[in-house]
Amino acid sequence: MKHNFGAGPCILPKEVFEEASRAVIDFNGTGLSILEISHRSKEFEEVVIETEKLVRELLEVPAGYSILFLQGGASQQFAMVPMNLLPENGKASYLDTGVWATKAAKEAKKVGQVEIVASSSDKNYTYIPKDFVVPSDAAYFHYTSNNTIYGTEVFEKPNTSVTTVVDMSSDILSRTINVSEFGLIYAGAQKNMGPAGVTLVIIKDDLFAKSGRTIPTIFDYEAHAKAGSMYNTPPVFSIYVSMLNLRWLKAKGGISVIEQENIIKARTLYDEIDRNPFFKGTAAVEDRSRMNVTFVMDTPELEAEFLALAKERNLIGIKGHRSVGGFRASIYNALSISSINALVDTMREFEEKKK
Amino acid sequence: MKHNFGAGPCILPKEVFEEASRAVIDFNGTGLSILEISHRSKEFEEVVIETEKLVRELLEVPAGYSILFLQGGASQQFAMVPMNLLPENGKASYLDTGVWATKAAKEAKKVGQVEIVASSSDKNYTYIPKDFVVPSDAAYFHYTSNNTIYGTEVFEKPNTSVTTVVDMSSDILSRTINVSEFGLIYAGAQKNMGPAGVTLVIIKDDLFAKSGRTIPTIFDYEAHAKAGSMYNTPPVFSIYVSMLNLRWLKAKGGISVIEQENIIKARTLYDEIDRNPFFKGTAAVEDRSRMNVTFVMDTPELEAEFLALAKERNLIGIKGHRSVGGFRASIYNALSISSINALVDTMREFEEKKK
Repeated sequence: MKHNFGAGPCILPKEVFEEASRAVIDFNGTGLSILEISHRSKEFEEVVIETEKLVRELLEVPAGYSILFLQGGASQQFAMVPMNLLPENGKASYLDTGVWATKAAKEAKKVGQVEIVASSSDKNYTYIPKDFVVPSDAAYFHYTSNNTIYGTEVFEKPNTSVTTVVDMSSDILSRTINVSEFGLIYAGAQKNMGPAGVTLVIIKDDLFAKSGRTIPTIFDYEAHAKAGSMYNTPPVFSIYVSMLNLRWLKAKGGISVIEQENIIKARTLYDEIDRNPFFKGTAAVEDRSRMNVTFVMDTPELEAEFLALAKERNLIGIKGHRSVGGFRASIYNALSISSINALVDTMREFEEKKK
Repeated sequence: MKHNFGAGPCILPKEVFEEASRAVIDFNGTGLSILEISHRSKEFEEVVIETEKLVRELLEVPAGYSILFLQGGASQQFAMVPMNLLPENGKASYLDTGVWATKAAKEAKKVGQVEIVASSSDKNYTYIPKDFVVPSDAAYFHYTSNNTIYGTEVFEKPNTSVTTVVDMSSDILSRTINVSEFGLIYAGAQKNMGPAGVTLVIIKDDLFAKSGRTIPTIFDYEAHAKAGSMYNTPPVFSIYVSMLNLRWLKAKGGISVIEQENIIKARTLYDEIDRNPFFKGTAAVEDRSRMNVTFVMDTPELEAEFLALAKERNLIGIKGHRSVGGFRASIYNALSISSINALVDTMREFEEKKK
């Protein structure tokens, strides 16, 4: 058995793969593949409705918010957010916590005026800036809740009364959140929601057409909301698999249950990193991510040796991103504690061998 | 066995469903699902490279053109085309041959100046306008080669020296084309290329950055070309299934072989429509589509009766679009002649019963 620690697209539950595999041959006893049914069929409309309902239920999304399934990933949201929310003469505030946050701000600058309220680039994004003030006249404030590359996470929404937009691509559905604190939440599906190819957007309805700009319909949140995510042909299979994954999460007991598991998984791994003299964490302790655990060793030679051992032990995808080096273990919802234990055992085995 | 005449997403070959289904459990013996592998893995990079190579080979795409796999469907191309090709002070020419052509022009108008060079709206789009001139100063000329709703198709590129952009969503890969006649070809995959969720763009490289506009990177063809369609996480599964489908097409003998089959399939069905006194075609004979065959009966009552019989005979998805009424049989590449025969037999059975 392989332990998939990949950063995304990433592990999903085995049951989800099995049911998805069957539906590619015969979807729900229709005699047709999920890949050949019309997106306007009653059967697929039911899929979209159930997926939306599951998101609403699991995240306790209040009335007055729309749930959209779009294409283009978080990268497309980097453009759509300012197109929809930033007036021609307005200004948006961005928190800079790493590569993705930087990109979000850079793309917004192509649409309008952007101000970076704080950045942790001075220490290679190893921490989350805390003492900053969002100007009260900002059209919106944007931040990235989990920084996959640097292994940092923002657990509390920064304190501001400005409409807040958050990129939760890599920690959505991993912990309870209070949706009503946000104006807009977006997430590429390919971590905890489903396979690549679909993007979740949760938007407060009073933000529709907020920028006053003329924008193509395909980029207009309101058009997608009015059409129930069927303005054009949606990514049928990616939505379907997301539904299966959300059903799995609900059957498990929902987000408060998975959050407890995620806390235990992260703690188990960080404890070993802190204990084992061969490894050290890279992120500030108070900002450590529960989704992406980043750690390094003293020399590149040792790292290469550990990587080789990890491969032998069927640990997949733990090489760190080039901006941080070392290792990154992505420990999303579907990764079981037994995979964490396999990694910890391998770290101990390495310690025994080398000490 | 069901005969899937749906307009899209639509039938794909059985072998493609079978291999895709297996890959959802174990992709190429990796021990991992195609849904959980990294898009940066060597295995998936090979998929993208092979898919691109197959498109290049099957459509004989010349050097100097890039092949892109994007998200958002043809509807997103309605916006991206003018964003990339229409300068602030330029003008684009559009041919209006139906709902999708109208939408393409309408979305382009949100970006810049648009002129409709001809329209067949006077006769509910039952024909393709032929006598029109594209102004030589147009930044580009846009048309829709196959009109799924009205069952018309443009087989010859309209005669103009202006850079031509074509929406081939519903007839790409169904017949030989001369790519060098076009500046840009785009197609939502969900007819003859693959499942919903990926969009093919073939663009002449000298059109990059042609509009001179500042646009978000995600909408910039050049950025996607430079990144080999990996600017951001691509729709992994939709690309993979497209590759399987292109392999199938190649093994069948390529586009000239499928084109001959498509000609025979269309002729068989149109012959019966013309012969059978209960049915009549809706499109001008010389503009009849080989992909979507539209036909009606004398009364709605008769139509309802035929639809009921068709359902009994396992003919799926033949109800016509509301703008035309009657019936629409979509007869894409993967639909076999035996399904055409099943439809023809049912039309004859109906005739026998009613005459």
